[in-house]
Amino acid sequence: MKEEGINILATRMDISVYQSVRHDFPEGKYHEDARVFTLSCRKPDIKNNNDFIAVVCAGTADIPVAEEAAVTAEFYGYNVRRFYDTGIAGIHRLFSCIDEIRKAEVIIAAAGMEGALASVVAGLVKTPVIAVPVSTGYGAAFSGVTALLSMLTSCASGISVVNIDNGFGAAQFAVRICSLKS
Amino acid sequence: MKEEGINILATRMDISVYQSVRHDFPEGKYHEDARVFTLSCRKPDIKNNNDFIAVVCAGTADIPVAEEAAVTAEFYGYNVRRFYDTGIAGIHRLFSCIDEIRKAEVIIAAAGMEGALASVVAGLVKTPVIAVPVSTGYGAAFSGVTALLSMLTSCASGISVVNIDNGFGAAQFAVRICSLKS
Amino acid sequence: MKEEGINILATRMDISVYQSVRHDFPEGKYHEDARVFTLSCRKPDIKNNNDFIAVVCAGTADIPVAEEAAVTAEFYGYNVRRFYDTGIAGIHRLFSCIDEIRKAEVIIAAAGMEGALASVVAGLVKTPVIAVPVSTGYGAAFSGVTALLSMLTSCASGISVVNIDNGFGAAQFAVRICSLKS
Amino acid sequence: MKEEGINILATRMDISVYQSVRHDFPEGKYHEDARVFTLSCRKPDIKNNNDFIAVVCAGTADIPVAEEAAVTAEFYGYNVRRFYDTGIAGIHRLFSCIDEIRKAEVIIAAAGMEGALASVVAGLVKTPVIAVPVSTGYGAAFSGVTALLSMLTSCASGISVVNIDNGFGAAQFAVRICSLKS
Amino acid sequence: MKEEGINILATRMDISVYQSVRHDFPEGKYHEDARVFTLSCRKPDIKNNNDFIAVVCAGTADIPVAEEAAVTAEFYGYNVRRFYDTGIAGIHRLFSCIDEIRKAEVIIAAAGMEGALASVVAGLVKTPVIAVPVSTGYGAAFSGVTALLSMLTSCASGISVVNIDNGFGAAQFAVRICSLKS
Amino acid sequence: MKEEGINILATRMDISVYQSVRHDFPEGKYHEDARVFTLSCRKPDIKNNNDFIAVVCAGTADIPVAEEAAVTAEFYGYNVRRFYDTGIAGIHRLFSCIDEIRKAEVIIAAAGMEGALASVVAGLVKTPVIAVPVSTGYGAAFSGVTALLSMLTSCASGISVVNIDNGFGAAQFAVRICSLKS
Amino acid sequence: MKEEGINILATRMDISVYQSVRHDFPEGKYHEDARVFTLSCRKPDIKNNNDFIAVVCAGTADIPVAEEAAVTAEFYGYNVRRFYDTGIAGIHRLFSCIDEIRKAEVIIAAAGMEGALASVVAGLVKTPVIAVPVSTGYGAAFSGVTALLSMLTSCASGISVVNIDNGFGAAQFAVRICSLKS
Amino acid sequence: MKEEGINILATRMDISVYQSVRHDFPEGKYHEDARVFTLSCRKPDIKNNNDFIAVVCAGTADIPVAEEAAVTAEFYGYNVRRFYDTGIAGIHRLFSCIDEIRKAEVIIAAAGMEGALASVVAGLVKTPVIAVPVSTGYGAAFSGVTALLSMLTSCASGISVVNIDNGFGAAQFAVRICSLKS
Repeated sequence: MKEEGINILATRMDISVYQSVRHDFPEGKYHEDARVFTLSCRKPDIKNNNDFIAVVCAGTADIPVAEEAAVTAEFYGYNVRRFYDTGIAGIHRLFSCIDEIRKAEVIIAAAGMEGALASVVAGLVKTPVIAVPVSTGYGAAFSGVTALLSMLTSCASGISVVNIDNGFGAAQFAVRICSLKS
Repeated sequence: MKEEGINILATRMDISVYQSVRHDFPEGKYHEDARVFTLSCRKPDIKNNNDFIAVVCAGTADIPVAEEAAVTAEFYGYNVRRFYDTGIAGIHRLFSCIDEIRKAEVIIAAAGMEGALASVVAGLVKTPVIAVPVSTGYGAAFSGVTALLSMLTSCASGISVVNIDNGFGAAQFAVRICSLKS
Repeated sequence: MKEEGINILATRMDISVYQSVRHDFPEGKYHEDARVFTLSCRKPDIKNNNDFIAVVCAGTADIPVAEEAAVTAEFYGYNVRRFYDTGIAGIHRLFSCIDEIRKAEVIIAAAGMEGALASVVAGLVKTPVIAVPVSTGYGAAFSGVTALLSMLTSCASGISVVNIDNGFGAAQFAVRICSLKS
Repeated sequence: MKEEGINILATRMDISVYQSVRHDFPEGKYHEDARVFTLSCRKPDIKNNNDFIAVVCAGTADIPVAEEAAVTAEFYGYNVRRFYDTGIAGIHRLFSCIDEIRKAEVIIAAAGMEGALASVVAGLVKTPVIAVPVSTGYGAAFSGVTALLSMLTSCASGISVVNIDNGFGAAQFAVRICSLKS
Repeated sequence: MKEEGINILATRMDISVYQSVRHDFPEGKYHEDARVFTLSCRKPDIKNNNDFIAVVCAGTADIPVAEEAAVTAEFYGYNVRRFYDTGIAGIHRLFSCIDEIRKAEVIIAAAGMEGALASVVAGLVKTPVIAVPVSTGYGAAFSGVTALLSMLTSCASGISVVNIDNGFGAAQFAVRICSLKS
Repeated sequence: MKEEGINILATRMDISVYQSVRHDFPEGKYHEDARVFTLSCRKPDIKNNNDFIAVVCAGTADIPVAEEAAVTAEFYGYNVRRFYDTGIAGIHRLFSCIDEIRKAEVIIAAAGMEGALASVVAGLVKTPVIAVPVSTGYGAAFSGVTALLSMLTSCASGISVVNIDNGFGAAQFAVRICSLKS
Repeated sequence: MKEEGINILATRMDISVYQSVRHDFPEGKYHEDARVFTLSCRKPDIKNNNDFIAVVCAGTADIPVAEEAAVTAEFYGYNVRRFYDTGIAGIHRLFSCIDEIRKAEVIIAAAGMEGALASVVAGLVKTPVIAVPVSTGYGAAFSGVTALLSMLTSCASGISVVNIDNGFGAAQFAVRICSLKS
Repeated sequence: MKEEGINILATRMDISVYQSVRHDFPEGKYHEDARVFTLSCRKPDIKNNNDFIAVVCAGTADIPVAEEAAVTAEFYGYNVRRFYDTGIAGIHRLFSCIDEIRKAEVIIAAAGMEGALASVVAGLVKTPVIAVPVSTGYGAAFSGVTALLSMLTSCASGISVVNIDNGFGAAQFAVRICSLKS
């Protein structure tokens, strides 16, 4: 994988794997929360300087997926702003930052359990919302299936959904959207 | 069924059935939205005069289930207040009446599709919330299963759930709670 | 619903319903394939004059869902180009128009059965692909569930998915994307 | 987490975690059966002195979930009475204590396998019954799903259901009910 | 089908079918509740004179399946005793006849919804209990699947299960058991 | 558990557990294939001297479940005959012993994968067949669910089914049947 | 559709549809059991004169699917031999014709309920067996899903499976195999 | 297992098992990718010298299953050609070798995730395609179930399907087809 001038993005990498390869890639960076390794020999231009992708998630358990999305988008040269404690059980936290979220080009909303965050956000903005179900929760959460179904049947409009825990795919889709403007 | 002094509550009665029995029960009342027939020869005392059960639902499609709950609770002599256009796709409508909802003894929240209404409400109140999944929606709504799972895995606390479309059961459970105070 | 200057979009309307209301809305239009009724008192500006949304589907059975998407997007004032006989069983038909499809701002791909069309298209373009599973097929197609799961697990990147048969939602999401440029 | 005057309730804590933090919280208590850690710097008033919440379960395998519920309710200052060997395979044991159970304000019934205990209890009392499906059993028990479905479709009235193994949620709901009286 | 000396048992026959064939089989009998048609040219010997098969069910909705079982067993010459209002929501009715039920050679227990009747009965007797899940109920009853799973995971011993609504199969299995003694 | 004159049957015991308790129960016996521990201080009378229960299974992978059934039945004092290599992929092996199997009072048929053995056996005998689905197989075997469904929908008559891997329950049911004769 | 020299095969055609088009296609043939319409202006050569495809099914309810396969194969010019009463509940009927079945090039085995026929046949022959699950049965047959899973997990080798009720697809696959020889 | 002149094929063998038996079978060969051990004392004749079975797969994760198929077919004496980087996300790679693939007698197509490869290949050839779903992917891939359903509902004709990860079964079926010609 190691080549001059090549950019590398490796997702779902355990820290133990990183530790075994870190000496071969001293310029690489391991994003521990995201479990993502990046190596950017050629820095991408930061595109659309004031534009950003908002990555929203509900709580601690959703952060790894949210970070996988955020790190991926940054890898492709896009600005990312993180809103990571906005779960609907304490909906005032979401409201306190919704004006900032509204300014994003695209919103990635990662949520486990009943996944209602994506519906609530989409009802409050006019931007495309890419929903990422997260495999947190237990019992009837069915490893993210409940969040997936919940997001697919959202009563709000302007949502589309990617696979469970697929922060990477959400970011790729967001990047395709953002690159329309450039 | 027709006896002096007997009270009758029949749920899931089609209007055609009602029309074939209405002459036998001239004092009876058919609640068309709820598809419930009631005959109350002995009026129950209105209990706990200022107390009420709040019945909340998201939209038109959820009204039959919400009404089944409301009519059942009224049949047992409890005050009911209806909040029927509070879906989270337009969350401001919920916020405009949340202070009233907070005053209820118990809240029954009926919602189809992704059923997020129950989670949002429970995050905003301190009252018990009885969630009723509604079999509206199509595709991945799976006839109410998605709403059911969503409600069971709510990230808010203070929710419990009854069977899909079971407005009657929700009201019975609410009545058991309210009768603790009397 | 009838008001001066109001635009109306009603989906999933049976022709019999249309026939009962057509006299009240003489300026309205019933899109029979899409089962959509539109009334546009105020024509939207045609936006982004050379831009268009591509609506792709595999075969006859998918057309109602594809048309629901196409008519919805047109209702909001966007150009739509239809590519309706591009199923992968005869993949040459897809290849004969892929260069045109590549020029779209956004692609909506509606497919039933195994839903592989969305994967194949997404592998061939750099545009966002909104996949709509269609409830065609029988047996193990499970009313669109197989297409839904197939699209969610696509090995191609740049896909996101909406609910089964939700052409309307796909178009709304596409419109949110396209309006970023305007 | 350690602060003066703060009360802490941590569920699903393995004993190994407790052992690593016990020295930091010498006043804390680890409830081994419940896998719950509590730290109550400010003791709650014991409310409703003669009132109690009944926690009922069928057998040994259900005790961790029942204890999670019981310890949670006690943490909030409510009296709890435990009835832990009342499975319906030996229904006489349930009958020998049903008169005591009837005196409770609320009943939490935890059961795995076919979960019939909740139905049987609800048929014998007039109190609200909060059913907690437990992920015991094997094969067709499907990790608590069968108990969950069984409780949702109970032929008895006055039951509502929380997520599988969610003793904590059942207690929170019970506490919301009990606090109505105070 | 019409032959001298032949016995016929036809299950799941709608009354309209019966009415179109009744003139061809004047000696036949249509069991309306069971939707079973029988024609017994050669009466079977009544076997094991004091022995009987107990057919138990919970309520009105389960009677067609219970009757299919009962009529089938009688067709093969076995005594049947019916116990048809013994649902666990009013468990005292079951207790009032449990001593009679205990005297049966085999017990067939038909129940829909959560199907707990079979578990409760099996816990009270020493006889084999053949459980028949019934497709009554709605929502999470899933057309008998919940009752099926519930019966398969019964915490009581001495139960085995047949297909949903398969009163005929339960009776055939019961007959195989009873014929061991003759 | 250790008492004079008490008989003990413990199923699903790992050999490591046995090794830790063997010194406390020197008279006990560990049945390694069945993972069952038995301690019979009072030997049961061998009942019905020429009668036996046939335990049939398809192949090596099914033997633990078959043995759990066999050892349980023997524990209760019944004769057992084992037929353990009779899978339908080599149906001649089943035919070579079917005359012996026919002489059994009851047949327990354990099978994984598609579980067709139970259907084939039941079509060849007049004895009750207790089918035990086994959680062998992979992929679409779904840990025994496919065998379970297959046995429930058998086109042969005279079958009933117990939970996946429940050799113990099958034997208990068989014992209830056999005890009718004694 | 009507053209000189064109061959037409239309599956899943209701007789009412046929009756409305029969006058337009007087040379066409409606195969009522198969619900297939064929029009063969150019007769195919009968290929491989002594070779044939065996179509095997278990009982009356499976015949429509078996016939769809048989008529399709004949349409393409292949010999077909039908073995239609070979269900494993009466396995002797299968054995009485197994020597004939063995002579086939390919075997199509259609079966509903538990679908064991395909396994049994494949264990008895050395020819490829194409299994077609049929949506007969009720309850746990789940509209052919149980037969599908059963066939996929067959313990016999030499089986592959097509979609539920897809007699047409089975025949097409059989034709691809047979054409290898020509 | 070790005998003179005997051929052995053992699938799903971990390398650790191989290492513990390798000294007993010095002539044996362990195929590490396929996790298959073969011992061929009597070499099979290479059949149909120019004929071959094509084994096609999409990517690295599918290779173990593809290799299980390939090694099995070679064990029985058939030529195999491997096409292992032909996933539809980069469909040009498939097209660059499709002319070679078309020359095969039979094609085995192994694919995980959405499994669209099998559909695409079958639309491009006239040869029988045996589809093997692979349990790669995560979330909505459901351990190969999505690929399985996708392959069963393929819009292309000439496909049949074996169990998830069953490379061995696919090869056995392919061998039965190929042996028709010899």
